[in-house]
Amino acid sequence: MKDAAMNGWAEERLDELWARGRAFLGCDTAILGGAMAWVSERHLVSAISGAGGFGVIACGSMPSDLLSKEIAATRALLEGMGGERPFGVNLITMHPELDRLIDLCGEHRVSHVVLAGGLPSAASIKRVKDLGARCICFAPALALARKLVRSGADALVIEGAEAGGHIGPVSTSVLAQEILPEVPEIPIFVAGGIGRGEAILSYLEMGAAGVQIGTRFVCATECIAHPNFKKAFIRASARDAVPTIQIDPQFPVIPVRALANKGTARFMEMQRTVIDRFHNGEIDQKSAQLEIEHFWAGALRRAVIEGDVDSGSLMAGQSVGMVKREEPVAEILAELRGQAVAALTRRAARQAGG
Amino acid sequence: MKDAAMNGWAEERLDELWARGRAFLGCDTAILGGAMAWVSERHLVSAISGAGGFGVIACGSMPSDLLSKEIAATRALLEGMGGERPFGVNLITMHPELDRLIDLCGEHRVSHVVLAGGLPSAASIKRVKDLGARCICFAPALALARKLVRSGADALVIEGAEAGGHIGPVSTSVLAQEILPEVPEIPIFVAGGIGRGEAILSYLEMGAAGVQIGTRFVCATECIAHPNFKKAFIRASARDAVPTIQIDPQFPVIPVRALANKGTARFMEMQRTVIDRFHNGEIDQKSAQLEIEHFWAGALRRAVIEGDVDSGSLMAGQSVGMVKREEPVAEILAELRGQAVAALTRRAARQAGG
Repeated sequence: MKDAAMNGWAEERLDELWARGRAFLGCDTAILGGAMAWVSERHLVSAISGAGGFGVIACGSMPSDLLSKEIAATRALLEGMGGERPFGVNLITMHPELDRLIDLCGEHRVSHVVLAGGLPSAASIKRVKDLGARCICFAPALALARKLVRSGADALVIEGAEAGGHIGPVSTSVLAQEILPEVPEIPIFVAGGIGRGEAILSYLEMGAAGVQIGTRFVCATECIAHPNFKKAFIRASARDAVPTIQIDPQFPVIPVRALANKGTARFMEMQRTVIDRFHNGEIDQKSAQLEIEHFWAGALRRAVIEGDVDSGSLMAGQSVGMVKREEPVAEILAELRGQAVAALTRRAARQAGG
Repeated sequence: MKDAAMNGWAEERLDELWARGRAFLGCDTAILGGAMAWVSERHLVSAISGAGGFGVIACGSMPSDLLSKEIAATRALLEGMGGERPFGVNLITMHPELDRLIDLCGEHRVSHVVLAGGLPSAASIKRVKDLGARCICFAPALALARKLVRSGADALVIEGAEAGGHIGPVSTSVLAQEILPEVPEIPIFVAGGIGRGEAILSYLEMGAAGVQIGTRFVCATECIAHPNFKKAFIRASARDAVPTIQIDPQFPVIPVRALANKGTARFMEMQRTVIDRFHNGEIDQKSAQLEIEHFWAGALRRAVIEGDVDSGSLMAGQSVGMVKREEPVAEILAELRGQAVAALTRRAARQAGG
């Protein structure tokens, strides 16, 4: 084959490989945007969907009126780009207004709702589907993936421990090996540590319908994150993105992966001090736990919006080492796609030559 | 293509994919056995090499006379199986007798020496090569991979944080993305979390020459590990294999991945108590650090050899969830190979059909 023909073949082959994911999402590139609180808002989400990916609004702790505005604004931005493109909304199951937020997505005719942050109930999944939306859920282990299929989930995200933000204990490569061969029923999107097209290709060939990528989009030109936040991402290596550490089994800490900074060091120090005060009888267990839980309150917003990269929370996945510069979403997607196509081309050339 | 022809094609294709690793190691299956202290001794090593893989003796803290016996016994077992098969010896760079151990490998005409446990010096690498052996080194980051190539390493292992035993901070999938496309000069073996043939295939297609697997071999029939140790592996899920945790930046703890048990819980408790005693002025920093470092002394031997799975150290990678039964090494290798071949076959069938 000539180079151009080979490239055409590889482009077609990639589109076949993620055909199931593209059909499910209704877009050209089966890449879901990771829902990052404060980061995944109208600008980044519309940029991802506008460029052929699938943007997802992170509702986080937003009340329903704010979410309503965000959905409307995202749709308006997309219409400004020349048409209707699908995007999703990520809701956290522990949100006190979860039912109200699901209904709101129905009112806005949101096509895909992602239920995250804990195992969603069969009732929540049904509520999403009854409104005509597709329901995507996170499966942190094989048994839970099977349970979610039984509960009616339309698709799954399996997200490994190398992801940014709230994480489970098991790495992406292990989840992919354990879950992809065993759950053919519904499309599965692989997430965590994906920063190059070769990795996307690998997971597609292992049976994934697509992937979810967060960290690589933080330094998109269209992303509203503060320049300090983006600079910290561009400077960081994979080893700088570390999970928060719990130092005492009595005092749970939710593991969150973020860039190490003064805040993470102070968090360890604070835990030790508070636990000492508990052991010395100066405070009770509940107050100690509350002090630990409140430490990071507002810290993500401080970092993303205000640019306080010293004491703020710089949630990032290990793929942060592959973030090299600020560039438009369309270029990031083109680069990822190009790497996957080039890998397919190289492989076909070797096969033809050998 | 008929099924048999397709299968033949896939077998050949796999052999092409890891041809570089096979040629480098001098064996049929480019799978290096992970060097696990107490586990990777004559029986397991000869079983792996005898079945077409590449066994590696873990020298650990053995003195030279013991290592000498182990090498001779491994060779004798392999000769008993009907011939000369290559195997390697893993030496830890911090071993006080490192030079003596390297020379010993030369005296025994060991074909491949793996230098592990810290960055080996260019002098150590040269010493190995001057004796006529090939030198394999561990590269935990891209910059160090490049440095090791300049220092003369003949091959690299990149081992992600999902591996068992002593681990670095970065996951296998991220290391593979960062290092494989950038270091084409020498063969690279990918390690950490590999438990199925589909994952082997993925890393080969991303440019690896082969893989290194430890955890999957612990429950081999030929492995001398205590039945309790094997039972713990068969029972465990990926999420049970967790890294040791350091609770104070002043008191370093080397991260080791092992199955959580009473020992790991007690280790956290001990650290807290010792650090409290330091802060209260009861002991000095050096004594506190020593107490922390000595906690696990002998704990691996206790678990592997004596079967004390409560207080011993059950070093295991996250692929432990894919260990389902005790079975001969040859069956493990056949299963891994079969999964890779089946994945290639399925893919070719889809391509032919689409």
